[in-house]
Amino acid sequence: MGRYVVGVDFGTLSGRAVVVDVADGAERGSAVHAYRHGVITERLPGGPALPPGWALQDPADHVEVLRTAVPAAVRAAGIDPAQVVGVGVDATSCTVLPTRADGTPLAELPEFRDRPHAWPKLWKHHSAQRQAERINTLAAARGEPWLARYGGRVSAEWQLAKALEVLEEDPEVFRHADRWVETADWLVRRLCGRETRNASAAGFKGLRQDGRSPAPDFLASLHPELPGLLPKVDGPLLPPAARAGALTVEAAGWTGLPAGVAVAAGAIDAHVTAAAARSVAPGRMLAVLGTSTCLIMNADTCHEVPGVCGVVQGGVTAGRWGYEAGQSGVGDIFAWYVDRAVPASYTAEAARRGMPVQDLLDSLAADQPVGGHGLLALDWHSGNRSVLMDHALSGVLVGLTLATRPEEIWRALLEATAFGARTVVEAFEAAGVPVDELTAAGGLTANRLLLRIYADVLRRPLHVVDAAHPAALGAAIHAAVAAGAYPDVESASAAMGAARRETWHPDPARADAYDELYAEYRALHDHFGRGGTNVLHRLHALRNRTHPTP
Amino acid sequence: MGRYVVGVDFGTLSGRAVVVDVADGAERGSAVHAYRHGVITERLPGGPALPPGWALQDPADHVEVLRTAVPAAVRAAGIDPAQVVGVGVDATSCTVLPTRADGTPLAELPEFRDRPHAWPKLWKHHSAQRQAERINTLAAARGEPWLARYGGRVSAEWQLAKALEVLEEDPEVFRHADRWVETADWLVRRLCGRETRNASAAGFKGLRQDGRSPAPDFLASLHPELPGLLPKVDGPLLPPAARAGALTVEAAGWTGLPAGVAVAAGAIDAHVTAAAARSVAPGRMLAVLGTSTCLIMNADTCHEVPGVCGVVQGGVTAGRWGYEAGQSGVGDIFAWYVDRAVPASYTAEAARRGMPVQDLLDSLAADQPVGGHGLLALDWHSGNRSVLMDHALSGVLVGLTLATRPEEIWRALLEATAFGARTVVEAFEAAGVPVDELTAAGGLTANRLLLRIYADVLRRPLHVVDAAHPAALGAAIHAAVAAGAYPDVESASAAMGAARRETWHPDPARADAYDELYAEYRALHDHFGRGGTNVLHRLHALRNRTHPTP
Repeated sequence: MGRYVVGVDFGTLSGRAVVVDVADGAERGSAVHAYRHGVITERLPGGPALPPGWALQDPADHVEVLRTAVPAAVRAAGIDPAQVVGVGVDATSCTVLPTRADGTPLAELPEFRDRPHAWPKLWKHHSAQRQAERINTLAAARGEPWLARYGGRVSAEWQLAKALEVLEEDPEVFRHADRWVETADWLVRRLCGRETRNASAAGFKGLRQDGRSPAPDFLASLHPELPGLLPKVDGPLLPPAARAGALTVEAAGWTGLPAGVAVAAGAIDAHVTAAAARSVAPGRMLAVLGTSTCLIMNADTCHEVPGVCGVVQGGVTAGRWGYEAGQSGVGDIFAWYVDRAVPASYTAEAARRGMPVQDLLDSLAADQPVGGHGLLALDWHSGNRSVLMDHALSGVLVGLTLATRPEEIWRALLEATAFGARTVVEAFEAAGVPVDELTAAGGLTANRLLLRIYADVLRRPLHVVDAAHPAALGAAIHAAVAAGAYPDVESASAAMGAARRETWHPDPARADAYDELYAEYRALHDHFGRGGTNVLHRLHALRNRTHPTP
Repeated sequence: MGRYVVGVDFGTLSGRAVVVDVADGAERGSAVHAYRHGVITERLPGGPALPPGWALQDPADHVEVLRTAVPAAVRAAGIDPAQVVGVGVDATSCTVLPTRADGTPLAELPEFRDRPHAWPKLWKHHSAQRQAERINTLAAARGEPWLARYGGRVSAEWQLAKALEVLEEDPEVFRHADRWVETADWLVRRLCGRETRNASAAGFKGLRQDGRSPAPDFLASLHPELPGLLPKVDGPLLPPAARAGALTVEAAGWTGLPAGVAVAAGAIDAHVTAAAARSVAPGRMLAVLGTSTCLIMNADTCHEVPGVCGVVQGGVTAGRWGYEAGQSGVGDIFAWYVDRAVPASYTAEAARRGMPVQDLLDSLAADQPVGGHGLLALDWHSGNRSVLMDHALSGVLVGLTLATRPEEIWRALLEATAFGARTVVEAFEAAGVPVDELTAAGGLTANRLLLRIYADVLRRPLHVVDAAHPAALGAAIHAAVAAGAYPDVESASAAMGAARRETWHPDPARADAYDELYAEYRALHDHFGRGGTNVLHRLHALRNRTHPTP
């Protein structure tokens, strides 16, 4: 009789559960549950309007995934739940929420329900950019030792900037928050009844390096009450795939899984995907192409790579230096374009052909020669994570003419994200961290034009993971380790990781033409992103001035 | 019994005729005829594909306007055609065609029908930019005396660049063209049987200054055969509103007008509109806001204004220095946006509300505070006429975020054209040509949000002409002068010109906020347009490289 593990992946818009065979990683069943409130950007449910840049989630939506998707996946697998030996969860990060000491989200207390700062802030909540700028300026001025581990700039997306924003804009919420916790860790607590912190998020998003958080006097220089954050984030740190505890009777009731099975430490979605993609050996870079892009890699040495999000000892797998970089808008930009800028004639034509609009755009754009559209875009519609780490930046599109067609803008956006990815890969290599192999996972790997463009732009083979739910598979692999079925993530990944679906090789002629466009991209990138002009910052500030603060 | 004149305006997509009372300019009837072939940009009718930047017209479409719109306007007026004493025509310019000595367009000869260079090139045919660059470089190097009259740069849109393009790319067409003629002059010949040249187009588009065309040795330095252009463009030059001849029996048959009535000299659409707008006195600037924008002004002195299209003695009315400047894409850009970038949800909502999409976008954008969208655009989708005179430039849009809505991009495009207009007005004033009064005419004056934005951005009152067909009215005013009803355009304009419909005054707070955005516009304008970066030129060249030449 087989043994199974369950992986649950909490994404931006939905959660999904998979039931996976411990022996070989084969997926036996899966289920997806879309969050009722999705991403909350315009106004709180039944509450006040939100300023630009905000992105919240409802913690109840997450629990609903445990109640619905997990039992549905087990049913779909057709297995006896008693065969399940462990469960692992991953989530987006830094997605962070204030809770009481017992783990109750402040957003679920009637007295805080209508206060935006009490709600979980999604990774792409970008309104703490001003706080991030102050953190960066002060850390650089003081020569804080951890700063270089984050490529020289910390992000508005992370724990500290988000916490400082709460403290400054709604201090009561800050004071009533006994805990300031990552969603993945909060979910693990819901499953096993014990609060733990995963070392990965603590390192990559919580600025915890070499066993230490930023010093109290540093925090006090930002705000006198900010040192009060430290006790809100303390607690035991668990390495990736460690056993956090045993499934409680209550959580067994939600999920239909046996009480007492192993619950793995919380994890970051892209990081567990490295295990699913068999991409945990040093020099293997994983690109998770989704709403945003995460680039994950292990190495045996610590290099402080300018503009890369972070390097953390044991941040991806225990015992190695884990690197994370990323692009804060990728699939999000494509979705924005389809939703806001594709004309009715195209929507109708796609319907007539019975295909998604994206596929129509791809088919119209695919055969155009490189550069034939005359366009160039900067993929900063959701700010820039690597290598500029600046969420007050915004998207740019140049080269528009009266002849420009929608599929040409579409292709320019696909290309811009590929240029963004190349910028990151080059930063790694320039810092002495060679990228020997590149593997893609994530929802956008369904787009063949995109994969071809990435292979051409990056001038290297692009392997594609053959897994429908790679993050959830990765969480399941962590669960298998937590349950003791494998000694470490490396061996579990080798046994349970997904095969390659295909490999895209660059076309030399297209790659040469893209070199030319990429040079233009880098010039625009540096002009708009490195101070050649600060027009994007000024437009951002002007926009924010016209909106009331919460 | 009243006396009437007929004005016929040949626009980019259609022609329109008006019947106007000679006494007071009241419109008695009008009719519009859309060109069967519109603007020919993709391929010749039944012929080969065209490269990017091309824009042709079919001369038969113009004659069809004389056959249909003129008699329809007379019928609509309910007058006896015998009461008509004159007819005037205006057209877009420089819209130019090669003909045989008898006036037959080469495009109508079977042996040239499939050769793109044999067809009339519309004003916005922009593929002669390389030729324009060479003309500019050589003229500057040789210190050609006429160059400063064109603000230091001649346009790819004009007669010489277009002729050089024909000579270089299809020399047989050049050699078989006995005449190289403006569409308005060609139409006048169709009406009165006599070839004439209007001094306005010869000056503004043909580089004719102080009675001289560019010197043969200058032309020979561009191409050994180019001096052969001079005999193709010679002939009597007529001042504005001069009598070119009498309506032929053949043309009387087409139009239903009495043979023998006065036919006025050909004219440029925006220039006759100055008469219709009572905007011919020195210091009064007329902005014709349409597909493109023309800015027209008279002054008593000649100033060589950098970046302004031209200054021509007697170019607008006899005896004064006429100035023309312009923006090569305005309404065209808005139409492009509506056609290519407004999502289906908006199209459906506009249909539900029973309004054009433009009006829906206006209504959604109108109440947003200045700068609230965080966007800034460069209005160069059709290149830049004033003040950069460069049709290898292209549109730019910065500040895009995932929250950007279609009405926000729409508004940013409206604003960009207002910033472009301000750039031109400031160039006039900086060169010592004060703009005392600003009047708007043209199809875009139907857009109230646009007018408000222009008044705010330009920080001055904006008067709006109350005429449905101002260019055709202006052609009719010229016809009245040609028929001897008035001694000059000034007096005819005073008697027959249209009243003001309304005046928009700037709002000081919005104007202040726009000052801030305008400063950003100018910085982007200079960066992308004056060599801070040549990325737009390189993208243009890369695009052209991927397309076959004709």
